[in-house]
Amino acid sequence: MKDVRVGICGLGTVGGGTFSVLSRNASLIAGRAGCSIRIGRVASRRQNESIELGDIPFSQDIFDVVNDPDIDIVVELIGGYDVARELVMAAIANGKHVVTANKALIAVHGNEIFEAAEAKGVIVAFEAGVAGGIPVIKALREGLVANRIDWLAGIINGTGNFILTEMRAGREFADVLKEAQALGYAEADPTFDVEGIDAAHKLTILASTGFGVPLQFERAYTEGISKVTPYDIEHAELLGYRIKHLGIARRREDGIELRVHPTLVPKDLLIAQVDGVLNAVLVDGDAVGQTMYYGAGAGAEATASAVIADVVDVARTVSHGSAQKVPYLGFEPGAMEELPVLPVEEIHSAYYLRVHAEDHPGVLAKISSVLSEHGINIESVVQKESELDNGKIPVIMLTHTVQERQMNQAIADLEALDDIDGPVVRIRAENFS
Amino acid sequence: MKDVRVGICGLGTVGGGTFSVLSRNASLIAGRAGCSIRIGRVASRRQNESIELGDIPFSQDIFDVVNDPDIDIVVELIGGYDVARELVMAAIANGKHVVTANKALIAVHGNEIFEAAEAKGVIVAFEAGVAGGIPVIKALREGLVANRIDWLAGIINGTGNFILTEMRAGREFADVLKEAQALGYAEADPTFDVEGIDAAHKLTILASTGFGVPLQFERAYTEGISKVTPYDIEHAELLGYRIKHLGIARRREDGIELRVHPTLVPKDLLIAQVDGVLNAVLVDGDAVGQTMYYGAGAGAEATASAVIADVVDVARTVSHGSAQKVPYLGFEPGAMEELPVLPVEEIHSAYYLRVHAEDHPGVLAKISSVLSEHGINIESVVQKESELDNGKIPVIMLTHTVQERQMNQAIADLEALDDIDGPVVRIRAENFS
Repeated sequence: MKDVRVGICGLGTVGGGTFSVLSRNASLIAGRAGCSIRIGRVASRRQNESIELGDIPFSQDIFDVVNDPDIDIVVELIGGYDVARELVMAAIANGKHVVTANKALIAVHGNEIFEAAEAKGVIVAFEAGVAGGIPVIKALREGLVANRIDWLAGIINGTGNFILTEMRAGREFADVLKEAQALGYAEADPTFDVEGIDAAHKLTILASTGFGVPLQFERAYTEGISKVTPYDIEHAELLGYRIKHLGIARRREDGIELRVHPTLVPKDLLIAQVDGVLNAVLVDGDAVGQTMYYGAGAGAEATASAVIADVVDVARTVSHGSAQKVPYLGFEPGAMEELPVLPVEEIHSAYYLRVHAEDHPGVLAKISSVLSEHGINIESVVQKESELDNGKIPVIMLTHTVQERQMNQAIADLEALDDIDGPVVRIRAENFS
Repeated sequence: MKDVRVGICGLGTVGGGTFSVLSRNASLIAGRAGCSIRIGRVASRRQNESIELGDIPFSQDIFDVVNDPDIDIVVELIGGYDVARELVMAAIANGKHVVTANKALIAVHGNEIFEAAEAKGVIVAFEAGVAGGIPVIKALREGLVANRIDWLAGIINGTGNFILTEMRAGREFADVLKEAQALGYAEADPTFDVEGIDAAHKLTILASTGFGVPLQFERAYTEGISKVTPYDIEHAELLGYRIKHLGIARRREDGIELRVHPTLVPKDLLIAQVDGVLNAVLVDGDAVGQTMYYGAGAGAEATASAVIADVVDVARTVSHGSAQKVPYLGFEPGAMEELPVLPVEEIHSAYYLRVHAEDHPGVLAKISSVLSEHGINIESVVQKESELDNGKIPVIMLTHTVQERQMNQAIADLEALDDIDGPVVRIRAENFS
């Protein structure tokens, strides 16, 4: 059984973690993999002072790794789109297997990358791109292979989950975001995390892996958490719900729903209890029912754990000289379906609504009748008489499930009422039953 | 790519579920597996009237399946030890791969079975044996392959978890057990479930898979839930804990802990929130930290989901003509360690203690001083003056972590006090931090 040689591109947080874990647990990993995994070359624009390379060749040009004939597996940990894409395509062209933690790359360029890899007969693995160290891609592609996956929902951005968790104590979004930045959980430019773009990258990959549809990141609906207020968090709690920033994908006959947005979930559901920077993915399969996968969604060694799991999967195959590949997205290319992503107006959801209304006896009747005209039933309603302000009171409602298009029309009609002040606050709600 | 032919032995609950899901999702599974999975033969002592066999050959002699030259994979779903062992050994001898849901068989005869399978170069897979449809064996053997697993803990018997969940409403064990039997969750003879034997089978497999040690079921410590009272459940809750029937395995330098017993866990931990018949396994790895896997631990189609996942893993390999095998217990035979299972006296744990003590001023001082003599610190204590009965009151204590041997001695000394009535109630506590 031959050694398998890995070339690491990028020595940042995840690259450093991968190097450390591969070194520290080398003999344990070899005992599991059935072959030795050797780091054959490392390349990074910057040296990482905390890494002892020993006699492992190092270069600043990452393309040295893909051009090294001794490297079997290229591990892409540089992040970003353009150079990463070029690097991965070059590795494939050179007949090398690829392991990447780059969710943006896979979500945006995955279809092209997998086509090239299929043609060359090489593996491209990306477990570390989704939910960090949690082996959820493996669960979807292999563990749940018997199931028609009907939907999945995940807390797949730790920064956002940390912020929403802290806001439950009454703190404002901007205040907690600053703390998250100070703690290193959030980037200086937090857009990717708090606006749901990072989560949409991951959701795109989860949906394709679960449903067998091409990656369609550009059609995902994305709504961030920057407009969530402690007031709404508190009132959702009073109604028995917790607000989580969820990525939700649902398979329907006419297409798939692919959406990231703040969501009310019943407080007693397990996924509602996942707090802080932790991640969890809930998956519904027709045979197994609901399963959930929970753990660290980021961090040097947690992400390295997933990178190395992919490396070992490849190594187990390579060392047997086998051409076996679990299909990139869990389905053989010929078995993929060209289901479109549905516009968000087509989804069905329950809704939390909050309006500022005139405090007079007929106002609730007016609001209910507008909703009723659009076929929307109210499940519960709270009028906050105690918060009378300038003749207006907050009215908070939880509706039954309707199509988003109906809700949009109802909200437009509500906002046109003289009795309503300012925009209607609307947060979607799911009970996953 | 050739078809892969499966022979199903046993058409009970899981056999029927496997047949149904393989039939219903045949094209979806083929699209994922890259080959067709055909049911080539079915054998069962009894016909299952709900199954439409069509033109699939059926026999009452299960050994017809292992002797059918057209069968690639034997799926053993008959349960039990002796005949199942004979069947699996015969299948291996005939060069067939084996998929089983039989935890008892693997926990008790696994070492022998894997040795025979290794010699023949065939795969023996058993995902369905542990935690039903949850792909936790795959997570341990593959997804967490980079990690030194330090410990794992699981709610791995749904019947027991259902009973403890219902007892939180104040109901007695015997009463809930009857309901569980009426609902079909518990067998007429509930010993395997409520005395922790079934959980110990599964824990044995989890521990070996996580740690790379031989299966040592016969040395597992097993304590059931039949002595847990609503009173202790209620008082554990008051102290901030929930009582769960956990299987706990811990890797230490001198050996492994392997134990199933009622356990207090902090109420706000995710695993404490897993209620009813559901299962969850919490795993601690040195790189990834804690991950948890949650879902249905039993049921026809949930278990079938895991059986078929194993079948597809084998089929993907077989259809490529590869000899690749993920090692049976996650480690290559040469990489296994002969670590012994430690006697339960060697474990370290915190403890919930309840004693009936004389209601006089010095009694708590006496109890504390006995504990203190054995190096045991009390974290919290509740004296129930309101429950004065015959001059005695309940005293409930939560201790810091000590070795079980010390606790045994302390309990013997406590029971020897004149001030103490009857045996000391002792339940172990873990915080998993």
